[in-house]
Parts: sequence; structure tokens; C-alpha cells
Amino acid sequence: MSRLEEKTIKTEKIFSGKVISLQIEDVELPNGNTSKREIIKHPGAVAILALTDENKIVMVEQYRKALERTIIEIPAGKLELNEDPKTCAIRELEEETGYSCKELELLISFFTSPGFADEIVHVYLAKGLVKKENAASLDEDEFVHLMEITLEEAERYIREQKIYDAKTAYAVQYLQLQKALK
Amino acid sequence: MSRLEEKTIKTEKIFSGKVISLQIEDVELPNGNTSKREIIKHPGAVAILALTDENKIVMVEQYRKALERTIIEIPAGKLELNEDPKTCAIRELEEETGYSCKELELLISFFTSPGFADEIVHVYLAKGLVKKENAASLDEDEFVHLMEITLEEAERYIREQKIYDAKTAYAVQYLQLQKALK
Repeated sequence: MSRLEEKTIKTEKIFSGKVISLQIEDVELPNGNTSKREIIKHPGAVAILALTDENKIVMVEQYRKALERTIIEIPAGKLELNEDPKTCAIRELEEETGYSCKELELLISFFTSPGFADEIVHVYLAKGLVKKENAASLDEDEFVHLMEITLEEAERYIREQKIYDAKTAYAVQYLQLQKALK
Repeated sequence: MSRLEEKTIKTEKIFSGKVISLQIEDVELPNGNTSKREIIKHPGAVAILALTDENKIVMVEQYRKALERTIIEIPAGKLELNEDPKTCAIRELEEETGYSCKELELLISFFTSPGFADEIVHVYLAKGLVKKENAASLDEDEFVHLMEITLEEAERYIREQKIYDAKTAYAVQYLQLQKALK
């Protein structure tokens, strides 16, 4: 099998922000030619499929400026520097929903946009939810509406494109699969 | 319900490349405070879950510079300006795999990274694959290895983190669900 690797010749840093940074890499292609790759660096994130004892899915409705609209998503958040994903999942679940959980299991990790970004999302399943008295609160620029919905409602929101992002679509399909396997 | 919308006060364009562009938006938050949003604009993409008559999944192994490694993905590609997603899916399937298809069905569309990007991926299911004699070829900076694998192999590649991206994880789980529903 021929090699597919692209060797970096030069890296130009364009932008470094609070969430992402952007760099352009000049690369040598497998055939010896050169090309440019536009690359977004992201700290990574967690997402939590949290199920109540009544088997409802905890969702947050959130305005996404990149989309210029609100969508309904499973709770999620960025990893802090050197933060363990599981610790982050516990923190984000509490901040966004006020819940702590007795069980937390990693379902899958995936890169969201491998063509241009290194963002990875670790998707957890949380059960045994307990409402915390003095839960940590959201970041000062975060505003969400909390919802608890059934799988049937989630399926309807997907059809209506109110649920509209990769991690939440994966999480809902995960529940459909578990139901079908029963 | 309180409003969640963030109003743009100012947009600063930072970078415009061949795949993505980056802009910073100063926004007014629901509580009247201001914040900054880092936003990546992307033309959108299609991905194709293509099944052979032997029920094998057509995959491409590809080096992803953002990840500094190869991963195994369902065929995918960016929308050209004003291109219909279905037309794009037919074109990308042919370019990356040499296959045309008799059936093409949209499974789902989702935003990959709503926290910072407007990239949407339209995931299609393709059946009735026919190898084309003079198939359109890859872009000059694209190099892929073509594979045809079983669902069991795909499940193993997910465990081994060789399949490692959102659209492909969704597609494999879709096949698991269809199998469970039978």
C-alpha cells in the first residue's frame, strides 16, 4: 500500500482565539507535489446523553451564533486545559443541567470535522441523575433552556430539524438501537 | 420562555481560504452584556454510506492533516458553489470510489460543530452500485485507499479508533440499527 501521509513544510499561524486557533500548513503530498491545508485547532469537548429515572433525555436548547438559530442538543462543553474528559463530563452536566450522576460511561469518541479541524467529542451516557442543591452555574456568556424529552419527541425534533447536530443525532440513534436490541 | 438569541454588533473578517473562512462577531447576549464569537464558515459537505450488492460498506482510508494520521471514513466531499447536495453526493461517490449508484436516499443532515462552525453534512445511503468505466477522478491534492468492508469489520475499526469521525460513526450505527430492526 502506498503511503498517504502529508509532510508539513511550513506552518503559518493566522489566529489564536478563546475557543479555536487557525493555521495554514504547506504540505508535501504523497506524489511529491505541494498543497496548503487550513487547520482549526480546538481543545476537544464532551457531550452527555443523560437519562432520567423516567427514561427521559436531558436536552438543552441553545442559540448557536454560527448557525444564527437555536437548536436542541445534548449537554456539552469544551475541555479545559489538561482536563480529563470524564471530569469535564461531570462538570458540564452539572453546569448545564444542575444534575450530578451516579453512573457515567463513555459511549464513543469521534472527530467532528476531520477535513479541517482536530476537534474531538467524547460522548458519555449518564444515569442515576440527582438534582444538586447548589449546582455550579453556566459560563457568563452561556444561556440555555433545559428540557427533558422522550425518545419519540427526540425523533420528532430530528425530523423537524430542531435537533440538528452530529453528537445529538448520534445519541438519539444510540437510544433507538438500544430499544431495538431489547 | 426568555429569548436566547445573540444579536451581531460587529463582524470582523479574519481569514478567507479555499475551504474555510474565519470571522469574529461581537454579539449582544440575552442579558444585554456583550461577548465575542469565533465563527468558521464552510460550504457544507455530503457523505455517502454506499453498500455493495454483497452488503459491504465502501470506505476510504485518507490522511487527515488536522489529525496528523489516516482514518477510515465513508466517502465524502465539499459542496461546490450552489451545488445541489444530491448532485454532489453522486459526483463525490464517483470521484472517490469509481461507483455510480441506482438508488440514493438522504438519511440525515447535521451540523458537525455548531459551537464554532456552520458546516453541515448531508448523509446519503447509496445502493445498486455500478463500477464506472471512465470514472471522474479525485482532486489533484486528494489521495485515498479504497476499501470494502463488512459491518463486523466496521465495528472492529470503531473499537480500534481507525474509524474515528462523526459521520462514519453515525453511518455504522445506522447499519447496526437496521440490522437490529430486522
